[in-house]
Amino acid sequence: MSATDDLVANNAVFAESFAKDASRKPAPKVAVLACMDARLDPVQVLGLREGDAHVIRNAGGVATEDAIRSLVISQRLLGTEEIVLIHHTDCAMTTFRDEEVRAAIEHDTGARLPFELEAFRDVEEDLRESMATIMANPFIPCTDHVRGFVYDVDTGRLREVS
Amino acid sequence: MSATDDLVANNAVFAESFAKDASRKPAPKVAVLACMDARLDPVQVLGLREGDAHVIRNAGGVATEDAIRSLVISQRLLGTEEIVLIHHTDCAMTTFRDEEVRAAIEHDTGARLPFELEAFRDVEEDLRESMATIMANPFIPCTDHVRGFVYDVDTGRLREVS
Repeated sequence: MSATDDLVANNAVFAESFAKDASRKPAPKVAVLACMDARLDPVQVLGLREGDAHVIRNAGGVATEDAIRSLVISQRLLGTEEIVLIHHTDCAMTTFRDEEVRAAIEHDTGARLPFELEAFRDVEEDLRESMATIMANPFIPCTDHVRGFVYDVDTGRLREVS
Repeated sequence: MSATDDLVANNAVFAESFAKDASRKPAPKVAVLACMDARLDPVQVLGLREGDAHVIRNAGGVATEDAIRSLVISQRLLGTEEIVLIHHTDCAMTTFRDEEVRAAIEHDTGARLPFELEAFRDVEEDLRESMATIMANPFIPCTDHVRGFVYDVDTGRLREVS
């Protein structure tokens, strides 16, 4: 049995007591952009119910072009108006440098990685940078409610960064 | 009060009963790539516990370059070995065409969107394409366990696509 098999078995249990309760457009009109970290579950951390928010996640919770793509779809096609960014303490993105890992990958594979890994040194600084990237993007219509938080993986608490 | 204020209040309640229980590296060594849809919560759908899996999400759950970036970090730096892809029924990505939305955006903003929106016609076809993109990527070391599922938003059930 792979770990994936266990997860598929979990889904059978979940589906047994499933009750549909939501539509495609988030009712509170919120999109969340958060790190992929296994300790951070935006649904629980923000008390989201089914249908409450789009949740976009990547390594770091960085406002990459693909995150912008998802936010453009979320706002323009599905009507969300607020954006919540979540970075977190003890993030793996602060533990390496792009150059080192890129060099190791090139050594292993013989090929150059065609993109940046987006590692950062300071979680607050990167969060501010991601907020600024979103605020400045001309394709995201609603930027009146863009707020950034650092999630503390030791306490479960969000701390707002402005 | 904005919707975000409500979510911040929810976090205070969550943090009250928070008990730390996990480390940065997912114990079951799984990374999930799923759509951002508000009705799909991978944590509940797969019965994940804190620390169980990296969760990467974007519009469509598509294996974009940024999703590949996150998977490279997940496997190379944090030791995951299995990948679970989740697309879903009634996905907004099947309801529009890139060309139409790009034209509307150019009309509204006066600028050309510098990226594709990644809309698709057929959810299974796009899921297979995303799986193939991952399997063929030379920078993702472990591709022995890459499995794709369509989540049924009406029943809560995952259906495997091969």
